[in-house]
Amino acid sequence: MRKETGEEIDPELVIKLSYFLGFDREKVWHLIEKNYLARNWGRYTFLLRFDKELSHIDRGTVLYEKDRSFEMITGFPKIRRAMVLDPAVKKHFVGLEKVEVEEKMNGYNVRIAAIKNDVLAITRSGYICPYTTQKAKEKLNLEFFDDFPELVIYAEMVGPDNPYISKNIYDVESVEFYVFDVRKKNSGEPLSISKKQEILKKYGFIQVKSFGEISLDTAPVEISKIVRKLGEKEHEGVVIKDPEMILSPLKYTSSQSNCADLRHAFKFYNEAGRDYMLSRIVREGFQTVEWNEKEVEFDKRCIQLGKSILSPLRESIRYIKEGHRLYEEARIRVRDLKTVAEFHEYLSRLGIDAVFEEPQFVGGEYLIAIKKINKSTNDKTQAIWQGELW
Amino acid sequence: MRKETGEEIDPELVIKLSYFLGFDREKVWHLIEKNYLARNWGRYTFLLRFDKELSHIDRGTVLYEKDRSFEMITGFPKIRRAMVLDPAVKKHFVGLEKVEVEEKMNGYNVRIAAIKNDVLAITRSGYICPYTTQKAKEKLNLEFFDDFPELVIYAEMVGPDNPYISKNIYDVESVEFYVFDVRKKNSGEPLSISKKQEILKKYGFIQVKSFGEISLDTAPVEISKIVRKLGEKEHEGVVIKDPEMILSPLKYTSSQSNCADLRHAFKFYNEAGRDYMLSRIVREGFQTVEWNEKEVEFDKRCIQLGKSILSPLRESIRYIKEGHRLYEEARIRVRDLKTVAEFHEYLSRLGIDAVFEEPQFVGGEYLIAIKKINKSTNDKTQAIWQGELW
Repeated sequence: MRKETGEEIDPELVIKLSYFLGFDREKVWHLIEKNYLARNWGRYTFLLRFDKELSHIDRGTVLYEKDRSFEMITGFPKIRRAMVLDPAVKKHFVGLEKVEVEEKMNGYNVRIAAIKNDVLAITRSGYICPYTTQKAKEKLNLEFFDDFPELVIYAEMVGPDNPYISKNIYDVESVEFYVFDVRKKNSGEPLSISKKQEILKKYGFIQVKSFGEISLDTAPVEISKIVRKLGEKEHEGVVIKDPEMILSPLKYTSSQSNCADLRHAFKFYNEAGRDYMLSRIVREGFQTVEWNEKEVEFDKRCIQLGKSILSPLRESIRYIKEGHRLYEEARIRVRDLKTVAEFHEYLSRLGIDAVFEEPQFVGGEYLIAIKKINKSTNDKTQAIWQGELW
Repeated sequence: MRKETGEEIDPELVIKLSYFLGFDREKVWHLIEKNYLARNWGRYTFLLRFDKELSHIDRGTVLYEKDRSFEMITGFPKIRRAMVLDPAVKKHFVGLEKVEVEEKMNGYNVRIAAIKNDVLAITRSGYICPYTTQKAKEKLNLEFFDDFPELVIYAEMVGPDNPYISKNIYDVESVEFYVFDVRKKNSGEPLSISKKQEILKKYGFIQVKSFGEISLDTAPVEISKIVRKLGEKEHEGVVIKDPEMILSPLKYTSSQSNCADLRHAFKFYNEAGRDYMLSRIVREGFQTVEWNEKEVEFDKRCIQLGKSILSPLRESIRYIKEGHRLYEEARIRVRDLKTVAEFHEYLSRLGIDAVFEEPQFVGGEYLIAIKKINKSTNDKTQAIWQGELW
């Protein structure tokens, strides 16, 4: 059996996967043929990843052969958003007395797990990022993975040396991994908040900030206070959780985070998703009504929204008018230049057009600036300045 | 031969259309079968309209049998937009010495023509609107259509009694038809500006405001002045034309018009097209850079943009929170209540959910308020207030 690309499909693999996943063989064959279940490349061809969301499997879920069967690491479950805290929180968590509130950080989601005698960092889409993997190995207490090979760390990689989302707001010098969930392999079942906190503390992992358990009755009011304070520091918002982690979590974000998203989206206006932009604008509308804002506060919100949209737009349009090419700046910091080469190749394979600057030797490590080119916004804007019509 | 709906397709009609349009019979049959070429209903079943844009035929083009052949009224050609005046205008009209600048009005586009011993108003999509038709008969000098049965009037219906786009900015008491083009049947060929103005003047038609002929060299500067002034009165912008009407026209709009569009779009945020919203925001970015605005002017633009988005959004969200249903208000004014019934049936057939209030007898005519319900925004907002997640 062969895929359209000419690649052969191993019939034995199909049989084994069919057994493990509980799917018909035809379905497994179809998933592989269509690349919905695809292999990683290079050293990681053993790792299969779900490139599509299936009925009971999140996109980015990965699996690999182990002990004549498979081991699976489930993807990031999509966390639904409360557009208004009251009544969404009470309705969603009905029956609970208390909810746990944790900070939602603005970083890059990764899963870190022991896989085939190695520790690997898996991205949201199910790729192995060589840079993130290297950083995880440097930053985390790897004994954890020896002691609990069946557990997976779900974390945000944050800090200025994060090549995906570079932020200076968290008092992190290079990058750190802030853990928000610990889940079991195969089932994806999360540890309860208390068990998670206990085990992470024992191994010295950094955890996302906890605001503790809050009574469900007062949760909307309390959470709005927390989110306002987080917003003042340009922090993103919160994730609201069932302490036992049985009910699914909810998220809620600050106005500043919406506006920060908009600033980024309008800088690259021809790349950003229309729905992404609109949803962030609509959130501002609901928040101002829910928080019952006075005209002074409302005016401030309007100015902030207008500037978040128009400032980056003006900057990009002007910059391209002056003959420059627009790009996103990123930075990585490595001990070994081999990681740079691997990361460069990794980005190319993902189709990201990036220019790597010369490494700078700083404090025993190499700092490398990266320019990620946003072709669509560049080309569109340039064409308009040359008189092209809309 | 039958369509999927069970409606019969007349083979003779297919042959005749194939001859008139110069298409294969299979293609004509396909167009009819798919309803890309569809019949109007009621009294107007004789009128076929193109419901899709074809390679050389604009959407909304209509045709009907006449003298053993057909007569065709071409649709509204899509007018392309200059995102920046310089160099777009010079590039588009290269070779001309002068361009004609006319006001682009914010109304409802209609074509008015003599069809089968009647005068009918055809909408952009190729429907016969009974209200617009009645108004056209009352307002226009119908002798024109006797003298020039081969010509079609392309006009904007503007004013407060326009049920589609109700505006009070034009000093029109009820509705008026502002003519912008006169075109020939079948070919769609437009009269030159001077011929158009002469013939319209002779028959006493109201014309869109002309800013006269402007030298191509100074056009970008002059037009930006005109557009700024129009913007101050909340007027929409301009259409820039080849005086001979050989090259296609261009449009350019004021910031106020962009913001007015946004105010309307964000009032009905779940109905409005994402691309519609984004394009109007992006225009603001290009205009501020092209006009080289200082920080004070830029800040004003940001505030105006922020308010244009957030004020209607807040108003709708609040209004629905308070238990109301959101709707668009419109108004018609008729001499005969028969027109009301016809118009109501017409809107239903188009799938528009509208509530007609009791007629008020005012100055010898009936005024009828209409509430057009925007189901999608109502339902979405209400669900969020009941705790639904995004």
